[in-house]
Order: sequence, then structure tokens, then C-alpha cells
Amino acid sequence: MPTQDDRRVTRTAPGAAGARSRRVLLALALVSAPAAHAQGRADPLPSWNDGPAKRAILSFVQRVATEGGADFVPVEERIAVFDNDGTLWAEKPLPNEVYFVLARLRELAAQDPSLAARQPFKAALEGDAAYFHETGAQAVLALLAATHAGMTQEEFAYDVRRFLSDGRHPELRRPFPSVAYQPMLELLAHLRANGFQTWISSGGTLEFIRVFAPSTYGVPPERIIGSELQRESRRADGRLSIYRLPNGEHFNDHDGKPVGIDRHVGRRPLLVAGNVLSGGDIAMMEYSRGRAGPSLQLLINHDDDAREFAYAERDGASLAAAQRFGFVVVSMKEDWKRVFPPPDEDGVPRP
Amino acid sequence: MPTQDDRRVTRTAPGAAGARSRRVLLALALVSAPAAHAQGRADPLPSWNDGPAKRAILSFVQRVATEGGADFVPVEERIAVFDNDGTLWAEKPLPNEVYFVLARLRELAAQDPSLAARQPFKAALEGDAAYFHETGAQAVLALLAATHAGMTQEEFAYDVRRFLSDGRHPELRRPFPSVAYQPMLELLAHLRANGFQTWISSGGTLEFIRVFAPSTYGVPPERIIGSELQRESRRADGRLSIYRLPNGEHFNDHDGKPVGIDRHVGRRPLLVAGNVLSGGDIAMMEYSRGRAGPSLQLLINHDDDAREFAYAERDGASLAAAQRFGFVVVSMKEDWKRVFPPPDEDGVPRP
Repeated sequence: MPTQDDRRVTRTAPGAAGARSRRVLLALALVSAPAAHAQGRADPLPSWNDGPAKRAILSFVQRVATEGGADFVPVEERIAVFDNDGTLWAEKPLPNEVYFVLARLRELAAQDPSLAARQPFKAALEGDAAYFHETGAQAVLALLAATHAGMTQEEFAYDVRRFLSDGRHPELRRPFPSVAYQPMLELLAHLRANGFQTWISSGGTLEFIRVFAPSTYGVPPERIIGSELQRESRRADGRLSIYRLPNGEHFNDHDGKPVGIDRHVGRRPLLVAGNVLSGGDIAMMEYSRGRAGPSLQLLINHDDDAREFAYAERDGASLAAAQRFGFVVVSMKEDWKRVFPPPDEDGVPRP
Repeated sequence: MPTQDDRRVTRTAPGAAGARSRRVLLALALVSAPAAHAQGRADPLPSWNDGPAKRAILSFVQRVATEGGADFVPVEERIAVFDNDGTLWAEKPLPNEVYFVLARLRELAAQDPSLAARQPFKAALEGDAAYFHETGAQAVLALLAATHAGMTQEEFAYDVRRFLSDGRHPELRRPFPSVAYQPMLELLAHLRANGFQTWISSGGTLEFIRVFAPSTYGVPPERIIGSELQRESRRADGRLSIYRLPNGEHFNDHDGKPVGIDRHVGRRPLLVAGNVLSGGDIAMMEYSRGRAGPSLQLLINHDDDAREFAYAERDGASLAAAQRFGFVVVSMKEDWKRVFPPPDEDGVPRP
């Protein structure tokens, strides 16, 4: 590493972000070099401990990519789909897109102080989680309408880029894109080196992820699936743009995730990775499991309170599904040698 | 030709369909060989007459793909989006998906003769176009519900494959996939050879096009944008599948086309091709034209009654937009040396 494929991925990242991505991959190469020497050949997953999860991944990838083998899968069917929050990057104490919402609300309240006195903005700015548990989806949609809608796609992307460039994760104290998990960055690169398309299917919104996924993950904008607001074509000064409306259109979680994958990819994924939190990834893992022929599902378990955050599901649904369907459980504590990349190699998109 | 790129495209087409696609591309290579020799170098568009449209295409592609040139465009931004009906294949006397609807209705009526007595099925089976003009969208949606919904994605794809394999275009008397336009197949290959992603954005339904686009056009399922019915995740016998519901969700025409491109691609296209019929492609051509930097829009004009079908718009909106925005008009009569590929090289997906 970096392989030819890494260079190919880098080329898919735009401009300055591409240059940063190249630096991330270079750093990855330096990190992996000692491991490669020790084993006598390159270890594509140097941040993974030798154990059942790493062995399951390496064996699966080799089997599906070996022409003439019993489990060979043609390259066009090598679709890998990753959840984002809690699977590719940290989602605690709050998902990073929530920090974006709060940062935007603070900016809006600075321009219009009356906002801070009105609900649900007041509750959001004061961290009053109980308010949102009581009022539910309507209140959340009002926050999205204020921070995500009423502008063109280009204007929204600019806001997100500014947030990612200026902000810092409040607990991990590093730029948001560098709360990505180093072992998962290695897995993405290893899959691409073996002919896989790497996709993201997230409960977060499509356009938020599109801004940083190319530079942070090497995943281009056209391979992001997420929750969506309604949009429409609008003309201003003789130019047609896509305008963002304040209504939800697709909620990409639970049973909505296979629907999103069907819409964007049109095939059952060969590999899916999700995580334990809400059971939101079970459906897309089942969908992959229903593929005719081999498939692999990875379930990230957040059991490492020292290096990240330890949390579980009250009903244990994801781990129960893993047992029932044969998903491979990845213990962050046991299976990962390190969790985060060096914080200065962050894949941050500058505005 | 075929270039390295053609081989890459072939690999993205599934199984038997891939083998057929290879044959199509091979045939293309044999057809192009004499032209290449005559000019002393390979002509990537042998079925195009030398004229302003061909020169505009070749010059544009060379400029955006030349590193260091003033109009150079990075490979990840080389997005080409094609309308399907009337742009990549014939759409007269009726769009081919309408022939699919009629074939399915005849099959359903054979199983349940009462269907043929009920509207709107009666009108459809009797070719009563006036009925549909009077009743409008509701009647069309009822036909879609009967033929496109109430089944899984896998079952629908099987129906489409069977239709494409068994059916023949009633006027052109050849398999449906071989009513594709030879000059446009060459253009798709030329763009891919120059690093472009080729996409389809059609008013037809997403899943209908996904069945034949890989073998006919070399465009994979994940690069199709179309009209959509609602879908949901359903579990049967422990397996989760995507089930098709009888309600429209997205109408991918007129102002809906830029929205579909935004959803699936997330960038303004560098090149868009549409055709004269209803003005349905103007919006996505405007959207491409609004790109910062170079862009090219092609408008196919159906003016060749001898080799295809001649038709125009009553209000002339597409040709007026071409003049206003600077779209390049392609005359099928003047710009195309031939219209259809050899009929036995049809890219037909077998069931």
C-alpha cells in the first residue's frame, strides 16, 4: 500500500481535497510499512488485530476476487455498502451532522436573536434533549428546514465545507473528518484494490456526506446514499439550479436503507457494514444476506470506552440479528489495533 | 476500437449479457476498421458524417480531456448524461416501454379475460389513445400498477428480460435493443475512452432500463436515473426483498430530470444529450449549461423519415432553447451515416 487503486481513488477526489486525500493515503502507507515487512508481504489491514473478524474479511475478499474459484464474483457485482455514523466515523456523544445543525443555528441566532427564544431552536441551542423526545420528528424536521433547506445545493455545500474546515469534535478534540476510523479506511482501500465499488448508505443526509466523503473516504458523490429533503429545479438569472425544500422525502434508516440501496445501486450488496446503536443497519444487512451466492456482513460493536465510546442497544437487536443471520461482529476493543488516524491527516474539505 | 475502455465496459455487464455486449462491440470494431484506415488513424465516430455536430463533439472531448489545456476537466467531473427514448434508441410509433406494458396486459388478459373489459385496460388493449388523453395521469398510473407493481424487483426484472428477448419492434421489425442508434453507441464508447462516466436519465422507469442498459449501452445499473414507483422492504421466508408498490414517486421528465441527476450524480453534467419531442430534456440541458466551466449539450432532431421517423414539436421549444442556450443540434438525416446497428448484434438480455 498505497496500491494502484489508491491512486485511482485519489483521482476521484476533487482539487485540494484530493491533495489532502493523497496525504492521508501516504500516511497510511507509512503506518503499514513495518507490518508489511514483519509478515514478508503487505498487510492490507495493518490496524486490525489478527483475529476472527480480520481473517473473515481477508478470506472473503480473496475468495470472491479469485477468478476460477467456487465463490468468484464478477467485478460489477462487487458492491460494498457502509453505514457512516458509528461505522466509518464516531457518532458519540452526538452524530457529527447534529453538531453541524447546532453550529448553523448559533450562526442564525447571531443574525436573528429572536430565533434563540423560539422552539424548537431554543431547546436545540440549550441542549434540551427531553424536548425532542417529547415532540419527535416534527421538531427535528423544523431544525433541518432551518439549517438544510431554503438554498441551492451549491450554497448548502459551501456551509458544510465551512463547518468541517472550522469545527472540532467537542470530545475527541480533532477535526470532524479525522474522527473516521483508521481500520475502516484501510478496509475501504483493500476492497477497492480488489475491484469493489465502495458505497455509503447513511441515515444522515445525502448532501452533507457528499462534501467530505471524497476526501475522507475516497468515496465519490455519486456513491452516497442518505436521507433526503425534497428538491426542485429553479431558474434565477437564466441559470437553472437545484433548490432545497423544507420537507423530508426519504428517511434512509431501518427498512428505508435497502430501498435507498435499490434506488441508487440496483443490486444486492456483496458486503455490508453497519454498527450497534439502534438496529438501523439490520435491514440492509439482511438485504445483502439474501443475495444469491456469497456475501459478508460486518457489525461494528462499540465496546471500547478507553479509545472511543462504549454503548449498546437496550433490546440487543443488532447482536441478536448477527447471531441469527451469521453477521460477523467486529469488536472495536479486540479487533482494532488503533481507532483514529493521525489527527493532522484529516481529509478535511476546505471551503 | 475497441479500446481498452471497451473491455472495461464489457466487464461491467453481467454474465451472458456481457458476452453479447462484447459481440456488439466487436461488430462495432469491424465496422469502424475501414474508416480508420482511410483516415490514417482510428475514427471514434465512424457512423457520423463529417459536419458541425461531429466536429463539435470531437473538439469538446479532446479539450476537456487534455491535461494542461485551458478547458481541462478532472476525470471525476466528466459526467455525461443521456436521455434514452429518442436519444439512444427509437421511440416511435410508441416508446418501447409502452410495448412492454401492452405485452404484459395481453398476458394478464389471457389469464383473466375480465381485464380486457375493464378500463383503462380495455382502452390500452384496443389502442384507444383518446381515452388516455381524456383521463390523463390516473389511467396511465393504473396501467403501471398492473404491469410494473405488486411484485419484487427480481420478478419485475425477469418479466422485462422475457419481453426484450421475445419481442420485436412492430415497425422496425427487429429486437427492441437493436433499435438503439449506432452513432450514439459510438459516442458512448468514445466518451468512456476519454474518462467520462456515462449515465442515462430517462422519463421511462428506472428498473425497466436497468435490465438492458448494461448489455445494450455498456451503462451499468447504478448509472441509470428514471421515473420511479414507490418501493418497500418486505420479508418472506426469512429473506428481505424490495417490493414494488402501485404509486408513483418520482416523474423523471422536464424539471424532474435535473432533480434526478442531482439525486444520483450530485454534480452538474459536463455533457448532456436529449431529443426533440416534448421539450422534456430542456431542463437537464439548461442544468448542464449552468456548470461553471465548459459543457456541451446535444439535441437530437428527428428529421429522417426514410431511415427512422420524422417528428417535431408543435411549439418548437427544444429547438428554440438550443438557439437561446447554444445547444448543438444533431440532424439524424445530415449528421448520421447510418442509424441502426446490424440487427443480429442486438445486446438483448436473455431471461
